[in-house]
Amino acid sequence: MPTINDNYLKLKAGYLFPEIGRRVKGFGAAHPQAKVIRMGIGDVTEPLAPAIIQAMHKAVDEMADRATFKGYGDEQGYAFLREAVAKHDFQARGCDVAADEVFISDGSKCDTGNILDVFGPGNTIVVTDPVYPVYVDTNVMAGHTGPAKENGEFEGLVYVPMTAENNFTPAVPKGKADLVYLCSPNNPTGATLSREALTQWVNYAKANNAIIFFDAAYEAFIADPAIPRSIYEIPGARDCAIEFRSFSKTAGFTGVRCGLTVVPKSLKGKTRTGDDVDVYKLWNRRHTTKFNGVSYITQVGAVAVYTPEGQRQIKDTIAHYMTNAKIIRESLGALGMKVYGGTNAPYVWLKTPGNTTSWNFFDQLLNQCHVVGTPGSGFGAAGEGYFRLSAFNSRENVNEAMRRIKEQLKV
Amino acid sequence: MPTINDNYLKLKAGYLFPEIGRRVKGFGAAHPQAKVIRMGIGDVTEPLAPAIIQAMHKAVDEMADRATFKGYGDEQGYAFLREAVAKHDFQARGCDVAADEVFISDGSKCDTGNILDVFGPGNTIVVTDPVYPVYVDTNVMAGHTGPAKENGEFEGLVYVPMTAENNFTPAVPKGKADLVYLCSPNNPTGATLSREALTQWVNYAKANNAIIFFDAAYEAFIADPAIPRSIYEIPGARDCAIEFRSFSKTAGFTGVRCGLTVVPKSLKGKTRTGDDVDVYKLWNRRHTTKFNGVSYITQVGAVAVYTPEGQRQIKDTIAHYMTNAKIIRESLGALGMKVYGGTNAPYVWLKTPGNTTSWNFFDQLLNQCHVVGTPGSGFGAAGEGYFRLSAFNSRENVNEAMRRIKEQLKV
Repeated sequence: MPTINDNYLKLKAGYLFPEIGRRVKGFGAAHPQAKVIRMGIGDVTEPLAPAIIQAMHKAVDEMADRATFKGYGDEQGYAFLREAVAKHDFQARGCDVAADEVFISDGSKCDTGNILDVFGPGNTIVVTDPVYPVYVDTNVMAGHTGPAKENGEFEGLVYVPMTAENNFTPAVPKGKADLVYLCSPNNPTGATLSREALTQWVNYAKANNAIIFFDAAYEAFIADPAIPRSIYEIPGARDCAIEFRSFSKTAGFTGVRCGLTVVPKSLKGKTRTGDDVDVYKLWNRRHTTKFNGVSYITQVGAVAVYTPEGQRQIKDTIAHYMTNAKIIRESLGALGMKVYGGTNAPYVWLKTPGNTTSWNFFDQLLNQCHVVGTPGSGFGAAGEGYFRLSAFNSRENVNEAMRRIKEQLKV
Repeated sequence: MPTINDNYLKLKAGYLFPEIGRRVKGFGAAHPQAKVIRMGIGDVTEPLAPAIIQAMHKAVDEMADRATFKGYGDEQGYAFLREAVAKHDFQARGCDVAADEVFISDGSKCDTGNILDVFGPGNTIVVTDPVYPVYVDTNVMAGHTGPAKENGEFEGLVYVPMTAENNFTPAVPKGKADLVYLCSPNNPTGATLSREALTQWVNYAKANNAIIFFDAAYEAFIADPAIPRSIYEIPGARDCAIEFRSFSKTAGFTGVRCGLTVVPKSLKGKTRTGDDVDVYKLWNRRHTTKFNGVSYITQVGAVAVYTPEGQRQIKDTIAHYMTNAKIIRESLGALGMKVYGGTNAPYVWLKTPGNTTSWNFFDQLLNQCHVVGTPGSGFGAAGEGYFRLSAFNSRENVNEAMRRIKEQLKV
């Protein structure tokens, strides 16, 4: 009988969102009349922009005609999209990123997991706490950790806390590390890394020959021009950082699936015998061998994001979500709650009232207000006592949720 | 500095198709007037069926309206598609496959690589020779092999030959194995496994507690009703087989990206300590953690394949390709070449004339006829002296290629 990957058995049974789903389902069965408002999972609600729709219709029509039909494209993505990304997302902001350093994929969740394929054993890996669970779980699956500890953390990972006490700015570790996960704007806290904070991390990585996995999936929500939107805005980052991006939240592609990963050609890892190897070449090999490119129709839709109309339209939608975030922040703040995030990110992160546990507050909010959020403890031990609300919703739902919380929540 | 995955360094520098691309590019530069006909890479040429196009337009329109917009779907795929697959592809042929055993993905190439994530070290792995290179390369990347040998094979894998001498029917190994890759209709040889041959493999797997990875990406091209289209047509296969399928060749989705993997709930692997584990649960965990579902638009297109019009239309396209295959077989056969495959598969596999090497014949065909094929040796040591021609082309190109071979090939 084949052996299985025993590392999977270290994973906690319930991933956060299935457990939320289970409780919401149970509540719905007991209260079939209740109109539940979902502010838990970070999924967009607004339709695709007209420029994207128009482009996708055109692409579908191309697939209907032998003369314009597209079969396999390059696994790394069509040049038209790689070039648009390099130009608009990076070069326009002074970042030295070439089109052939951009790898188009079916989403940044996949890429942040898959990137581990090209790295070896024995690396010291840093994550923040709280953290996007996929970073941790994929390291567990890859055998980079020991078993789970009592508090849910995994042995072998270095956790750097990210709480109100340090203004949600994780400090660089004292010791040496090899791989560092950073997410800014942050999921789940909604915090961003300032230029100074990000510079400290880049300097740390350079001093330690570490590589930063920089997840910028929410960069489009940054309103403050002083906050970096790409790690490549920081001098030296080309030598120490891989950046992940996504059209999911930027352009409403959660159901369409398109993301990208930038791997600079200057990035090095080392073999068991200590020789330098280009990480770029390894990732390119992985991408061409274990992936077969993104739907042509999707890529044509994605490149429409960079047209003047596309830009105008996605910015309107982002403004809609950010107004939601403002309403959430201000409504809960007016009730005396401590709220964080939500100014440069679509997530509001709040301290649970009365210092109750995250799951307890989840149940209160669900039972009393029929509103679903995400328990902070689901993102790590340091998330205990926090709670995430997503601004991805209709205005009507946000207003109604805030009204219910104001009138019905008893904590 | 982070360590890299040293196993990547064992991979041969040139994957088959890049090397073909390099030679074709060189030829094109030297002969800019030549009209090269590509019969190498197995990529479809005919447009998507009208039923699929219509469905995809409708899905794009749904994405334009808040009321019908779709964000994240289940990572495993929409129920409408999983149910259609289970019903039409399996249950209709008497196979016991439930909808929730069907995992929708962005392609079977990805899945045949990713499936290794859930298996452990120390397994004895069987591949055929010749073989689809992805099976081998992903095992190399996962550290399941030793270094490459002189003949291109990798130490640690068990190769079972598949040549004219055994009628392209690989025999079960004498020793015990844990994981077995079978592909029928076969890429590259175009051979199929008869019910008897497949039954022998299932019996072997059951006797050895092995798991078969059955790649049925080309099942739609089977014309002979006696040949199994799914391994689950063989009694007992639910306990020993995972099946991979794809819409790529069935419905022209190479540029649209949709495939599926069936993992029966009855399938077991064992932990390091010898306990049984459900492979289903591991794959489900992998799929939900490292993947985020297939584009809604793509899934709506895929389910249209199962409508009466969709079925009629894709069958017309398949008939077109299979007539191409017949023309290739008969034309080359009339020239005295030994041809195989091409009756239940879109690939014709031929013995190189005059026993020349595969790459030598590649160069002859390119230089004398301006026709590109795929050297059999690129698929493994036992492929040396063979050559693959793909039937995915226009009739005009196929006729012209055959005319050139008849009139211009001097071997």
